[in-house]
Amino acid sequence: MKNEYVDIETLKFLLYDVHKVHDLLTKDRFSEYDKTSLDLFLDSVKTFSDNSLFPFIKEMDEKPAYFKDGKIIVHPQFESILKDAGELGLVSSMFNFEDGGLQIPSSIFHAAYFIMEAANNHVTGYFGLTAGSANLIVSFGSQYLKDMYVPKMLDLTWGGTMCLTEPQAGSSLSDVVTSATPTNENYYLIKGQKIFISAGDHQFADNFVHLVLARIDGAPAGTKGVSLFVVPKNRPTQNDGLEPNDVAVAGEFEKMGQRGYCTTHMVFGDNGDSRGWLVGEANKGLMYMFQMMNEARVATGRMGAGIAAAAYYSSIKYANERPQGRKLTSTGKKNVNEEQTLIINHPDVKRMLLTQKAIVEGSMSLIAETANYLDKELTSTSAAEKEKYNLLLELLTPIAKTYPAEKGIEATSNAIQILGGYGFCFDFMPQQYYRDIRIISIYEGTTGIQSLDLLSRKITMKNGKALQLLAAEIQETINVANTYEELQPYASTLLENLGLTQKVIAFLMPHAMKGNYERFLADATIFMDFFSTIVIGWQWLKTANAAKELLTNGSGNQSTNFYDSKIHTMKFYYTYEMTKTKSLAKIIMNDEQLTITATKDLF
Amino acid sequence: MKNEYVDIETLKFLLYDVHKVHDLLTKDRFSEYDKTSLDLFLDSVKTFSDNSLFPFIKEMDEKPAYFKDGKIIVHPQFESILKDAGELGLVSSMFNFEDGGLQIPSSIFHAAYFIMEAANNHVTGYFGLTAGSANLIVSFGSQYLKDMYVPKMLDLTWGGTMCLTEPQAGSSLSDVVTSATPTNENYYLIKGQKIFISAGDHQFADNFVHLVLARIDGAPAGTKGVSLFVVPKNRPTQNDGLEPNDVAVAGEFEKMGQRGYCTTHMVFGDNGDSRGWLVGEANKGLMYMFQMMNEARVATGRMGAGIAAAAYYSSIKYANERPQGRKLTSTGKKNVNEEQTLIINHPDVKRMLLTQKAIVEGSMSLIAETANYLDKELTSTSAAEKEKYNLLLELLTPIAKTYPAEKGIEATSNAIQILGGYGFCFDFMPQQYYRDIRIISIYEGTTGIQSLDLLSRKITMKNGKALQLLAAEIQETINVANTYEELQPYASTLLENLGLTQKVIAFLMPHAMKGNYERFLADATIFMDFFSTIVIGWQWLKTANAAKELLTNGSGNQSTNFYDSKIHTMKFYYTYEMTKTKSLAKIIMNDEQLTITATKDLF
Repeated sequence: MKNEYVDIETLKFLLYDVHKVHDLLTKDRFSEYDKTSLDLFLDSVKTFSDNSLFPFIKEMDEKPAYFKDGKIIVHPQFESILKDAGELGLVSSMFNFEDGGLQIPSSIFHAAYFIMEAANNHVTGYFGLTAGSANLIVSFGSQYLKDMYVPKMLDLTWGGTMCLTEPQAGSSLSDVVTSATPTNENYYLIKGQKIFISAGDHQFADNFVHLVLARIDGAPAGTKGVSLFVVPKNRPTQNDGLEPNDVAVAGEFEKMGQRGYCTTHMVFGDNGDSRGWLVGEANKGLMYMFQMMNEARVATGRMGAGIAAAAYYSSIKYANERPQGRKLTSTGKKNVNEEQTLIINHPDVKRMLLTQKAIVEGSMSLIAETANYLDKELTSTSAAEKEKYNLLLELLTPIAKTYPAEKGIEATSNAIQILGGYGFCFDFMPQQYYRDIRIISIYEGTTGIQSLDLLSRKITMKNGKALQLLAAEIQETINVANTYEELQPYASTLLENLGLTQKVIAFLMPHAMKGNYERFLADATIFMDFFSTIVIGWQWLKTANAAKELLTNGSGNQSTNFYDSKIHTMKFYYTYEMTKTKSLAKIIMNDEQLTITATKDLF
Repeated sequence: MKNEYVDIETLKFLLYDVHKVHDLLTKDRFSEYDKTSLDLFLDSVKTFSDNSLFPFIKEMDEKPAYFKDGKIIVHPQFESILKDAGELGLVSSMFNFEDGGLQIPSSIFHAAYFIMEAANNHVTGYFGLTAGSANLIVSFGSQYLKDMYVPKMLDLTWGGTMCLTEPQAGSSLSDVVTSATPTNENYYLIKGQKIFISAGDHQFADNFVHLVLARIDGAPAGTKGVSLFVVPKNRPTQNDGLEPNDVAVAGEFEKMGQRGYCTTHMVFGDNGDSRGWLVGEANKGLMYMFQMMNEARVATGRMGAGIAAAAYYSSIKYANERPQGRKLTSTGKKNVNEEQTLIINHPDVKRMLLTQKAIVEGSMSLIAETANYLDKELTSTSAAEKEKYNLLLELLTPIAKTYPAEKGIEATSNAIQILGGYGFCFDFMPQQYYRDIRIISIYEGTTGIQSLDLLSRKITMKNGKALQLLAAEIQETINVANTYEELQPYASTLLENLGLTQKVIAFLMPHAMKGNYERFLADATIFMDFFSTIVIGWQWLKTANAAKELLTNGSGNQSTNFYDSKIHTMKFYYTYEMTKTKSLAKIIMNDEQLTITATKDLF
């Protein structure tokens, strides 16, 4: 059942009934697992979250990470959290057995992290970035780097980070200037500054392994001259010890949210002695980093979904306990002699709860879908199948990053509103979730950047093949829905929206073909809003299909009410959210170019 | 010119060119003023804001109001702020000359407060609530109460508050239980608790005058048994001194925003000796309080507009200074050998700035419109004219409260997004504005309550007369716009939307007539979103009319670019915002009743 921060039954329904994760267990890669062992893993993560994460989220906000004497100090609870997380295999879980991992399905990995992030979103970045950076070393690093760094990262004795952003460049990775000077040894000398480095330091790891983008002296300008280096905080000595590697923490960014999670300013090679080991080949750093970036984008969206989920459940709890006002009678007056009603009985409160439910569960379903595509890609037996799932994953990644981030803000804002004045006060959680979630649409490429990626790269790649594949997947969901009379109107709406998508793209593409890329992309963010609304509509219809099937054949292990609630929320989503796509399409298909023609002195 | 927090030229353009405030100066009430003296007043408020308010907004957030030993301690700067504000006449400015006031037009009063709130939204509540509560005493109190309390409130030696909310009742004023027991003297004994009392206490006033809703022993249940009392913190003694009146501060609510502005928990009569003086007649307290509530609602919306304005100007500043990325070339690639461009040149950044501009200036214009209606009501020479402007003001009040609050959240969120990672950090202001503005949709009746007020009271009052009057005002704006070819398409859109409003209301009203009030009002909040979008569309067309007129006859004292920017932003608003009304209408005109039929175990 749902508790204060998560609804495990809905999570499992999405995993097994909607996304059929257990079908993967017939594949060689996952043959060690059955549904019971996967559930056992999720249950252990839930217990860990209940006992060690959720009880500390408020305190981590009140006593945030801070910078002192060149070090970052985080909440003391991290000592046991990191130890337990290493032992539970939370870093290594998706790694191959041969690399010391548990080789669990990606869907289960994301479900586990979702539970932890709903419990405490200040914590998981410390594991997730370590997992991602270790995975980069495993994928592209030399045997030396793997042996030296990965085992200690998997048990969280050492932490890992990704170092991309520089003060002068921000998101523009073409403009990275951190330099890497070759030496006669097997390392380079690294010099430069990186900012906004999440999980960049803390007192509970013996070492940090930074994956740093830098430019080898003389490398070409732009992204084609960017290489990837392992730059440890402390480097290994010949006698198996560690010595400082001229990597300094210059400060901590004080933030409005996610305050337990440190965001550091790193300085490499201020004394000319920071050594970096090249990962893979020179000048291919960005390509390698994109493996981690893509994972991190889905993970960021998942974190947004987790925060919004926690806010949702906290507002349900309040709405179920707080009496205020009365139901309207047929005269439009209230009967003041009646007892006050619980606020959950007011239609406007139910609207705010349904909005949250639609956003939260729709986001969870989309994350599960992308994870499933990754699992299918990893276990595919033909090149064509591999390409198919890879393309689907590529197309959905910017949406999985953005929808939970942007709509998650709206969801947490509704949670505040349900609590009224209390929602704005530190005594209750919604205000913290509202502050925490605001970073999600900025991390790992802002919404603007994700939207450019979606429209300029993903929609157009391989002549629109990814979109064709997605349309086929959506069509399959429509076909199933059409077998249930109750779902047919929504299937029709989804089909109409597929048509509308084609129309919008047909309107936009000629601008690209004529070389007017600025015009093509000017409303990319509106396109993201439009298209992600449809994609979540697809997820909700798929969810309703699964609920309907279980209601029809009586094989579900949840109550009728549980499945009915999914169908009800799907209808709510179609009535209150899908309705907006026509307006959004109209905005995109305008010819006034009002943003392009606005000059800077207009503001 | 605009500075870091406000654009005075736009404010004056709205006051004089769009809303013709100087036309009021022919009226007796304002005959002491000319445009120069009004400008002088605004300029002095601007100087005060530059010197005494804006420099402290960040520090008031960092060192918030706090509770200690039964007292609220606010930032030390308040000592001089309150003294100066009293001297500048910021409390008394709208009062009649005979009551010690400056008798300035309401439009100018609101403009002055708007400037101060853009500079520092933590401050003005201390003046505004004192003005509002003094005004209640002036309007409905006895000569004794006026003489005793008002003069000291006008110079801010004493503060004033409104005490409505109780822990068990929240917004449900029918359920007020604070009691007032008659005595043989001219006072009652008050007993009860009030929460969320803004400006309830601080160390820089000798006394606080609380306007308290309470129920006289034996009064009828519901709102019809609620009376209004003056309950001072310290009561006057016979020898012109003060003695404690058993009014205790029990605590301070710690909030995510507006932290310099205290929100107190008050306890009256814990020792059985808190004396309250009845204002006006018994059992009419809510009616009296609604005068202050209505003023406070417009003021709250204005504060939202002020916060959003400050966020907007801070993000323009950043966008004009920050280089990042490059413009797209005709191949869709970036030329990495070019210098980076300022981010203000990216269409998506311009979209975010235009969105802010449309929301901020649209909100400012609506506040000016409501203020103008109040001035016209105050100076009307016939009962019919008085009724007309009163009805228009009544109709627009919930919108003026809600639009700047709800859309202001979106605007400040865009300001954060323009700053990227920095937007989330304490070193920059947008994150603070984003936290500060979140309370605006909760203060003085939440958005849900304003929406019920709009649809159930204001739209229906006097058989829809207010709406008819508003439609006539809008039609007048449309007629003017139709004289300019460039504006005709937007005039047509506005006219269509008037028609759509009629259609939506025609859909909803039968539910009320059939006694199904729950159904009638279930989507009141969506109706608010729909209707307020149209009302702001009207304000923008009116703004464009004024700009066009000045461009045409060349009589404006601003640059052509200034007026062009208004017309450009109007077009942006119609393309990106007005487009949404059709979807919103469709949501309202659905027959599924999905919120009403959702049971509480659905969540």
